[in-house]
Amino acid sequence: MSFQKLDDLNRRLDAYNHALAILGTDEATHMAVGGGEARAEAMATLAGIRHRTATAPEIADWIEAAENETLNEDQTAALREFKRTHTNVTCLPAEFVEHQTRTRMRCEQLWRDLRAKNDWTNFQPALDAVVAMVREEAQLRADALQLKPYDALMEQYDPGNRVAEVEPVLNDLKAFLVDFVPQALDVQAQRLAKRPLRALSGNYPIDMQRDLCLALMEAVGFDMTRGSLSISHHPFCGGVPTDTRITTRYRTDEFLSSLMGVLHETGHALYEQNLPAEWVHWPSGKARGIALHESQSLFVEKQIGRNPSFWRWALPVVERHLGEHWSIEDLMPHVHHVEKSLIRVDADEVTYPLHVILRFELEQELVSGKLAVSDLPEAWDAKMKAYLGLSTIDNPADGPMQDVHWPSGAFGYFPSYTLGAVIAAQQWAAIQRTHEGIEEEFAVGNFRSVNEWRKKNIWSQGSRWSTPELILRATGEPLNATHLKNHLTERYGSNVTD
Amino acid sequence: MSFQKLDDLNRRLDAYNHALAILGTDEATHMAVGGGEARAEAMATLAGIRHRTATAPEIADWIEAAENETLNEDQTAALREFKRTHTNVTCLPAEFVEHQTRTRMRCEQLWRDLRAKNDWTNFQPALDAVVAMVREEAQLRADALQLKPYDALMEQYDPGNRVAEVEPVLNDLKAFLVDFVPQALDVQAQRLAKRPLRALSGNYPIDMQRDLCLALMEAVGFDMTRGSLSISHHPFCGGVPTDTRITTRYRTDEFLSSLMGVLHETGHALYEQNLPAEWVHWPSGKARGIALHESQSLFVEKQIGRNPSFWRWALPVVERHLGEHWSIEDLMPHVHHVEKSLIRVDADEVTYPLHVILRFELEQELVSGKLAVSDLPEAWDAKMKAYLGLSTIDNPADGPMQDVHWPSGAFGYFPSYTLGAVIAAQQWAAIQRTHEGIEEEFAVGNFRSVNEWRKKNIWSQGSRWSTPELILRATGEPLNATHLKNHLTERYGSNVTD
Repeated sequence: MSFQKLDDLNRRLDAYNHALAILGTDEATHMAVGGGEARAEAMATLAGIRHRTATAPEIADWIEAAENETLNEDQTAALREFKRTHTNVTCLPAEFVEHQTRTRMRCEQLWRDLRAKNDWTNFQPALDAVVAMVREEAQLRADALQLKPYDALMEQYDPGNRVAEVEPVLNDLKAFLVDFVPQALDVQAQRLAKRPLRALSGNYPIDMQRDLCLALMEAVGFDMTRGSLSISHHPFCGGVPTDTRITTRYRTDEFLSSLMGVLHETGHALYEQNLPAEWVHWPSGKARGIALHESQSLFVEKQIGRNPSFWRWALPVVERHLGEHWSIEDLMPHVHHVEKSLIRVDADEVTYPLHVILRFELEQELVSGKLAVSDLPEAWDAKMKAYLGLSTIDNPADGPMQDVHWPSGAFGYFPSYTLGAVIAAQQWAAIQRTHEGIEEEFAVGNFRSVNEWRKKNIWSQGSRWSTPELILRATGEPLNATHLKNHLTERYGSNVTD
Repeated sequence: MSFQKLDDLNRRLDAYNHALAILGTDEATHMAVGGGEARAEAMATLAGIRHRTATAPEIADWIEAAENETLNEDQTAALREFKRTHTNVTCLPAEFVEHQTRTRMRCEQLWRDLRAKNDWTNFQPALDAVVAMVREEAQLRADALQLKPYDALMEQYDPGNRVAEVEPVLNDLKAFLVDFVPQALDVQAQRLAKRPLRALSGNYPIDMQRDLCLALMEAVGFDMTRGSLSISHHPFCGGVPTDTRITTRYRTDEFLSSLMGVLHETGHALYEQNLPAEWVHWPSGKARGIALHESQSLFVEKQIGRNPSFWRWALPVVERHLGEHWSIEDLMPHVHHVEKSLIRVDADEVTYPLHVILRFELEQELVSGKLAVSDLPEAWDAKMKAYLGLSTIDNPADGPMQDVHWPSGAFGYFPSYTLGAVIAAQQWAAIQRTHEGIEEEFAVGNFRSVNEWRKKNIWSQGSRWSTPELILRATGEPLNATHLKNHLTERYGSNVTD
């Protein structure tokens, strides 16, 4: 039976996935510094073997034969999603992928060096080469998938997302935010923090912060028997569903950045830990995509973790672990701090979407050829001025050289960040419609209702549906910016609400 | 060129080795408890793929063709050793291996349960099944390798070792020890420890012990940029040569057991870290075998770490880290403590070889069929009485059910432990012949000469030579017990020496 052959294949592929996930996580957390070269070699070799395994010529025949077999509903969904990933993984010729990998690696290596030197001139030709290949890639994918080129790129990250549906939502949000950011800054000026975000003793020991983070992780639903918290330079969520590994980094002068980071990664982890176990070795049993994943991390960080009700419960926990009392009034100005800045990863929930929309607009033009790489610094600067009133023209390191995504060839990925925020707000609105007063549950450290809703509507669904289908089924509405706009207005638009 | 094909194959196989080594180490150190099932599944799948990759039918042709190509000396050695491992890995039919794996796993699982219950009766049939398959395996290996059955089993662990050469050495040692153990105990009775092995404060914090262990690891040569120290239930050395991971466990009431354990594992790690890097993806670039590996760990633990000169340097280090002064006179009786016991892993360097020789003798009889599993408890008891004067007849849990080796089908492995002690003593004698007064170097924390000798003669040789050839080339003598007997006599035979 061909479905059985595909099942065996998926088990083998998942063994590679498991190994690569643990090796990758280990590299960032426990590997000795001298182990990097051999690790890179082993991972590249395994990734290559996995790719050859996933693209073996007989697989297309198995898919075709399985489509004519009698399958139950789960099997049908699994086969459909496997076929989609198979098309995505086989639509580029091997020689193209090799050439592209070399081009990207060269650009990424140059980027690490030249960004630090703010040297756009020497970086531009390398990025030019990457963009040329991305255009070719987009066309190859477009032909194979019968999609428009940029849609075909997005399809890798958020299956089913199309510019035609995404762009109006992001335009709506942009139009709102360009006016709202100054308003939120005015509002903030009237409630500036009275107590600075600093330890009274000058120092929060890392062990104490770690215990606090573990307590919060567990409270919001992290299964401590199937995951762990470590330290890494860049926080992330890695590992596998039965052993989900999140990381953070600690500052000793304040506790909020590691705590909020841990809540964010816990959101990712909850999704992984609650995927349908039976199908986890098939693509249909994996998380749906980047936007949905980000919606889960942002939900825990923003909808739960920046909600004043949450802090009514959490501040005594903080006091228990750090031995320091904070009032809601003293802490919330820090939790809700808004600031215009050049750097996307430093942005708050009000300004962040404008950073993403700028990139979404520019990368579409880069992929279509409407914008040349040589014109990118000016184009970036113009949008930065229009959206946030800031200039980067003398500072390309914090302009178009800011992120690793473009040098590494990841085009079509940026919108997922803000779509995650949009979807999180949409989920929160859907939950509030059926669970009135749910914030009162947060105030007593009860996250069961909110987790049950997400488990039923998001986590347990795996990749059974496309991104827009899953959003519609879960929230009863297609993707729209209304709820994020309402959420931001409520939280940042005035000083009346708590 | 076929040699090149084999080089590519070995790079692929080594990527699996790398992944399995890190996944295995991670399982014992950092894995979440709930991650075990998926980890076992992933590792079994990868091990299966590795096995199929290593036994693909075209490989025999590549070996034959490569033997007719013009190769340099390193390539010739690599090909020779690869051919040996290929014969060992292909000499059992796949169905036999599957059947045997199931039989072993069942027995090992039963063993975990029944040993705790001291239940030999229900364990015996499962061990019987394992032994029956081991007899068959030994014959299959013997036919393929043109060796005697037990030699063919040993060949997996220490290539080149044969009963004809090993047995006289172990018999010589046995004859010596049966008389020497009582003598050593008499000597010890005159120098019993005056100060008990306990923290004055009742507690050595784990962080302080860990820092002490790290200081000693580094001093004796561990490359801290290419390895690390973690905690696990059973201490081991794992990982890969560029990232060698050793583990220990800590007691807080005394510091000696973790410290000596770390020195032992550091000995293993030094071998791994100093293998010839260029050939590390070929079998010829791996460590020679179990006995040689054990000789390196025992060398650091016994020849260095239990040498009074070492402690002249180390005791101030201990004091710096633990804040507690110990005199040589107070500590050495603990470092050199001798005690007859039933348990191999608890034994000291004087009594340990008798535990091994007992198993070596019994397992040869089990493999040849001279001894039935049903007669094992009596046979074990008889030898235990003869060698150590202890009885296990009412206590099979601490008799023939003591170790995991037999339930898991590892026959021919036990002698390696004591051969390691024999070889370590032989290396130490060889070093002393050319480096007079080398103990004075230990007394000032200088381990360069001793490491240079081992790097040149052992570590850098990889698996270029068979076990007996390597011993002869390194020490100028064939395997013999003289130096271990002298070492034990000098250290434990009287109270005259320091």
